[in-house]
Amino acid sequence: MSEETPTIGIGMLGYAFMGKAHSNAYRTIAHMPGQPPLLPELVSIAGRNLEAVTAAAQLFGFEATVTDWRDLISDPRVGLFDNSGPNLLHAEPTILAAQAGKHVLCEKPLGMDAGESYEIWQRVAKTGVKHMCGYNNRFVPAIRYARQLLEADELGEIRHVRARYLQSWGGDEDLMTWRFDNAQAGSGALGDLGAHIIDLARFLVGEITTVSALTRTFIKERAGHAVDVDDAFEATVEYENGAFGTLEASRLAPGRINSLVLEVNGSKGSLLFNLERLNELQIHMNSSPHKGFQTVLMTEPEHPFLNFWYPPGHTLGWQDSFTHQAHHLLTAIREDTEVGPYGADLEDGYRAAEVCDAIVRSSASGRREAITYRKSEV
Amino acid sequence: MSEETPTIGIGMLGYAFMGKAHSNAYRTIAHMPGQPPLLPELVSIAGRNLEAVTAAAQLFGFEATVTDWRDLISDPRVGLFDNSGPNLLHAEPTILAAQAGKHVLCEKPLGMDAGESYEIWQRVAKTGVKHMCGYNNRFVPAIRYARQLLEADELGEIRHVRARYLQSWGGDEDLMTWRFDNAQAGSGALGDLGAHIIDLARFLVGEITTVSALTRTFIKERAGHAVDVDDAFEATVEYENGAFGTLEASRLAPGRINSLVLEVNGSKGSLLFNLERLNELQIHMNSSPHKGFQTVLMTEPEHPFLNFWYPPGHTLGWQDSFTHQAHHLLTAIREDTEVGPYGADLEDGYRAAEVCDAIVRSSASGRREAITYRKSEV
Amino acid sequence: MSEETPTIGIGMLGYAFMGKAHSNAYRTIAHMPGQPPLLPELVSIAGRNLEAVTAAAQLFGFEATVTDWRDLISDPRVGLFDNSGPNLLHAEPTILAAQAGKHVLCEKPLGMDAGESYEIWQRVAKTGVKHMCGYNNRFVPAIRYARQLLEADELGEIRHVRARYLQSWGGDEDLMTWRFDNAQAGSGALGDLGAHIIDLARFLVGEITTVSALTRTFIKERAGHAVDVDDAFEATVEYENGAFGTLEASRLAPGRINSLVLEVNGSKGSLLFNLERLNELQIHMNSSPHKGFQTVLMTEPEHPFLNFWYPPGHTLGWQDSFTHQAHHLLTAIREDTEVGPYGADLEDGYRAAEVCDAIVRSSASGRREAITYRKSEV
Amino acid sequence: MSEETPTIGIGMLGYAFMGKAHSNAYRTIAHMPGQPPLLPELVSIAGRNLEAVTAAAQLFGFEATVTDWRDLISDPRVGLFDNSGPNLLHAEPTILAAQAGKHVLCEKPLGMDAGESYEIWQRVAKTGVKHMCGYNNRFVPAIRYARQLLEADELGEIRHVRARYLQSWGGDEDLMTWRFDNAQAGSGALGDLGAHIIDLARFLVGEITTVSALTRTFIKERAGHAVDVDDAFEATVEYENGAFGTLEASRLAPGRINSLVLEVNGSKGSLLFNLERLNELQIHMNSSPHKGFQTVLMTEPEHPFLNFWYPPGHTLGWQDSFTHQAHHLLTAIREDTEVGPYGADLEDGYRAAEVCDAIVRSSASGRREAITYRKSEV
Repeated sequence: MSEETPTIGIGMLGYAFMGKAHSNAYRTIAHMPGQPPLLPELVSIAGRNLEAVTAAAQLFGFEATVTDWRDLISDPRVGLFDNSGPNLLHAEPTILAAQAGKHVLCEKPLGMDAGESYEIWQRVAKTGVKHMCGYNNRFVPAIRYARQLLEADELGEIRHVRARYLQSWGGDEDLMTWRFDNAQAGSGALGDLGAHIIDLARFLVGEITTVSALTRTFIKERAGHAVDVDDAFEATVEYENGAFGTLEASRLAPGRINSLVLEVNGSKGSLLFNLERLNELQIHMNSSPHKGFQTVLMTEPEHPFLNFWYPPGHTLGWQDSFTHQAHHLLTAIREDTEVGPYGADLEDGYRAAEVCDAIVRSSASGRREAITYRKSEV
Repeated sequence: MSEETPTIGIGMLGYAFMGKAHSNAYRTIAHMPGQPPLLPELVSIAGRNLEAVTAAAQLFGFEATVTDWRDLISDPRVGLFDNSGPNLLHAEPTILAAQAGKHVLCEKPLGMDAGESYEIWQRVAKTGVKHMCGYNNRFVPAIRYARQLLEADELGEIRHVRARYLQSWGGDEDLMTWRFDNAQAGSGALGDLGAHIIDLARFLVGEITTVSALTRTFIKERAGHAVDVDDAFEATVEYENGAFGTLEASRLAPGRINSLVLEVNGSKGSLLFNLERLNELQIHMNSSPHKGFQTVLMTEPEHPFLNFWYPPGHTLGWQDSFTHQAHHLLTAIREDTEVGPYGADLEDGYRAAEVCDAIVRSSASGRREAITYRKSEV
Repeated sequence: MSEETPTIGIGMLGYAFMGKAHSNAYRTIAHMPGQPPLLPELVSIAGRNLEAVTAAAQLFGFEATVTDWRDLISDPRVGLFDNSGPNLLHAEPTILAAQAGKHVLCEKPLGMDAGESYEIWQRVAKTGVKHMCGYNNRFVPAIRYARQLLEADELGEIRHVRARYLQSWGGDEDLMTWRFDNAQAGSGALGDLGAHIIDLARFLVGEITTVSALTRTFIKERAGHAVDVDDAFEATVEYENGAFGTLEASRLAPGRINSLVLEVNGSKGSLLFNLERLNELQIHMNSSPHKGFQTVLMTEPEHPFLNFWYPPGHTLGWQDSFTHQAHHLLTAIREDTEVGPYGADLEDGYRAAEVCDAIVRSSASGRREAITYRKSEV
Repeated sequence: MSEETPTIGIGMLGYAFMGKAHSNAYRTIAHMPGQPPLLPELVSIAGRNLEAVTAAAQLFGFEATVTDWRDLISDPRVGLFDNSGPNLLHAEPTILAAQAGKHVLCEKPLGMDAGESYEIWQRVAKTGVKHMCGYNNRFVPAIRYARQLLEADELGEIRHVRARYLQSWGGDEDLMTWRFDNAQAGSGALGDLGAHIIDLARFLVGEITTVSALTRTFIKERAGHAVDVDDAFEATVEYENGAFGTLEASRLAPGRINSLVLEVNGSKGSLLFNLERLNELQIHMNSSPHKGFQTVLMTEPEHPFLNFWYPPGHTLGWQDSFTHQAHHLLTAIREDTEVGPYGADLEDGYRAAEVCDAIVRSSASGRREAITYRKSEV
């Protein structure tokens, strides 16, 4: 790597699923073609269980290990605080890190609810650091390409957005993790899966103005613990631009492993994306001489991010979305540019939380709930 | 055909799309293997435009033509009154035909609303004739097979039902037909497309108890006429058995031609059906050694209706659902058995109408609307 | 049906799978929209087993039954002799029928080998009657549409043709039928399945000039009988126009039910067809702004045969190809036009047989075998 | 990374497509979970163009750059010589590196023909170093899983193997690279694409004993240069275990980007793999209650390599096959185990070359050519 590329120290909170994905991204980006904007150095990783975090540090390539995340914040070598910890630990560490002058990347969902999410956003925004919320699916090439088509008005007036995120692992009734505990997770499928499709719908189509929703817990006890989060939700939503559609998520859909499927119908064409086949975008344009979706492999040099990688047809994996995301954030830090609109910043994290809250509200009230987004006071 | 097979005279109202499908069914069933229960004779067909109905009579094989549908009812040769006419003409002719002792098959949606549908059902039921509502998709082999799997509890507790019916022909803004006129059609995509998926969801999963819905008219003027029916609707629904899910229909989904897609997730497995590939049923069972949907061609001898037809792999068409439906109705007439539960009778037609009405009501009220089904007073 | 439409009497030999498909076609065409060219009357059907043929006659709608096919030929009411009998009975009845002035439709494969096929063609051709060989797949809308695209040079110079026909029913080792007996069938998968893809390849791309092939019998004994026909073959072939490709067929491909798949690659685009999804044609054109196949539902009014049927998206079945084929033949008879090039005539039947023979020859010789087609001497 | 993990120095020849994929693999493996067997250090990279190789070194993370590959061999820090150079440079550098005591990884195809491939294999084998040929597709999880199923006799007696590798980039007639020059590449689609499917067919099904083949050059001139390599080939092949099937590759298949598709039919089931959807394996087992292929996402913990990575449904990319391959080779080096049978060693490289040569031979002779594999004399 070029000596001239400045480095940035990474301090990471959390060493599970997201910690691994983020670490791998920092490692990979440093060695990908195209001068990286900054060279990440994996300075320190925090976790309460010393043994486990030490093992993770070794595997992920971190130089040091701490059991108190405050040590990351006080570490002068840390330039970017990466919060890959559980939802309950998103607010305080992220805010304090920003106040200590660290740039921050916080996993989704941002806060435990919209109120907390707003707080995180506002307090971080005041500090002037760069901030990002980990909606990595924005960095799947097919999703970015869909955004480009929509920005270029290739689809015309948008009428329908169908977004769903279905998994099946929740069907194991003996399984009990923090993800089924409201105090730790804030919600179930809603924040875990629903937040992803809410962000993607917002990213592609625009703001959601109303929701009519139902949440449901089918498996009420797991391994002797009462479950107080949703297994699934169903919602109809309206968009600011006049479109309407559905949002759905479930952990109880047998045969669906990671089925984030998104369809947009406009007056001039339609798009269809499926995360299980993330290298593909299904496109139909009315201008085509035939009717029907075309299966387009998103691996051509003109497709987003692809000039970083391999010749056409050599597919990417889910992990690569994190590498693209990290590259984007580091570029924003290096060049002092905005994280948005292509990356999700903490305002995006807050706005998704407002939609999640409205879904809960509507499920309880039985009414179509309008959503009011608070403005920044910074 | 065997001399011993009794005949039944068909009197048909309507000679457009449905008239053609029904006529072809009567013709085909008469010559299919397996002794037909009754041999249809195409006695007479009614239409206001003499020239058009005469041409249709010739093409469909009817012996006579009338311009007043009352002539069908007074015709003693007519044993089955087939109402394939426009929605506005469903009530009176169907009721009068039944009162004249004719068995009746009425196209869907049954009435202009739930009230009228209830009336039709009740008045016909009082006469004691056999009655059917033309929800032909129940007679697609894959749908009947899905029903069999569900009846046998192969899917366990049902959690989700996702049903949608998308077409794109409404995108032509210059197109104006009776289907866009509320006075003639009663509703737009809701009654035309939505009614089909409502019936299938009821057929497979059970009664719908609440709906939260939105209807929308995107194209407000067509060829100079104001449009007063919906182009599309989106709804979340709850079922009596505890499942919940979505219902959606649109005439404005580019790339979707006849995309009736239905997915059911239970605790033990999932099913997926797509009318554009009606010879297939996608099946996932948790008992499978692998996770993922299996694409099963519904053409084996053990599949419903298939012992009527050809060796495995020789696919059926959409038309064949009408032939199966006609065979079912004629069997009920011949053997004095019930049309339900495998066929839709007028009560099914009424119940689907209640769901349609609740969708309209919820769209207006912004509330989750409970559905109360009226009982038969016969 | 219009009194003015002349009738034509059908005399049919054979009452099994093909007899049923042909009968149904004659019945359906008579009542389809668009004035039928001739109105078929099902005069008489021949079969050796009186009881079985009588049952078939009743089901298929034939007026009379005979146990000696010669009685069909001497019957003055028969205008079209439909030979749906086993391969061994293709030659003599077809020739004699033509010599008696009947038009003839003979199922494929035409003769037991190329020599016999040539004889049938020549002797029939001398009589001047209309003659057709039952390559019904030419009448699937997607196949005809593919032909239209190729005729219009939409694909440019053709480079590759990959055609295969896979089934799995032969995997049942206890199953023994005439199809496994060389004396009755002439060959196994080759004549049964291979002949179909040979005809389609010829129909779409042109004449085959050489083959290098292997045939194989994996299951050498069935229910105590030695099997002397092929279970499968594999071949590489060259075409007159410079293209080359593969032909394969098997009865031993688990999971494949009726998998006739055909792909053509040209310098300007590609086409892909699958008989199990016969309502679809996969199209890629280099002129598309994106790369990838478009799944086109062949149900638009501008697609072949579709103006006969239903609105877009209402799919056809395999049976309908026979109806289209019958309509084509009756049109040729009524209007004295050629059966070719859109229908297969007996010369096409002969030419496919030459390719089949060359496959057998090459398998034995281990050499690439050139094919010489004999010219008509009529 | 753990201080205890020994390191191994990598010296790489070549900095294009494969150089990038290999470098990324070495980088990624070092930081993946599961103690890596050896920690790769990217010591030095060789290329004739100093400027280009310097840029690559920086991007890939190599410490040093040389313009003469002999300098890699004389470098004592290099423990593994990675030959990602053009085909013409496979033999001498690989042999000399092994003779200098370096372990070797040589890209495929191994030599310019079977004779040279045999030489490379034999000379390297004599030295006792670990040797691998870069058939990375063996390390796609779905392929390894297919191998496991076949080893466990889940498919029974194998009857058919259909393997093809189709791309379309060769359709650009203005494109001229070393890949179209026989002196540099040795062959066209045959060695580039065909070698991959030959290796996979061997890996899964066993040795190929005969081939009947045709090669073809459709575009005979590119940018003013005569082309002397094949654009495509078609072959029928026999296997030692009695199976037979086809092999095909082309650079001229519009709509096909990286379409390596492989189907295996056995007496008990079938498998289907498509490199464009490399996270999926299509499985049909006769033991299934239904007939048809199941689409299985290869991302479960029990699937090969997946315990290294993420939760189910989080897909991998093409690059990851190289990481798995590098991990396998480093394990063999560290633990002194065999590269085969799961990795391809140089004998596998030689054997694939024998099949390629036989394809050329058969195309010229017009005969089915038997293949004789030379034994090791070491």
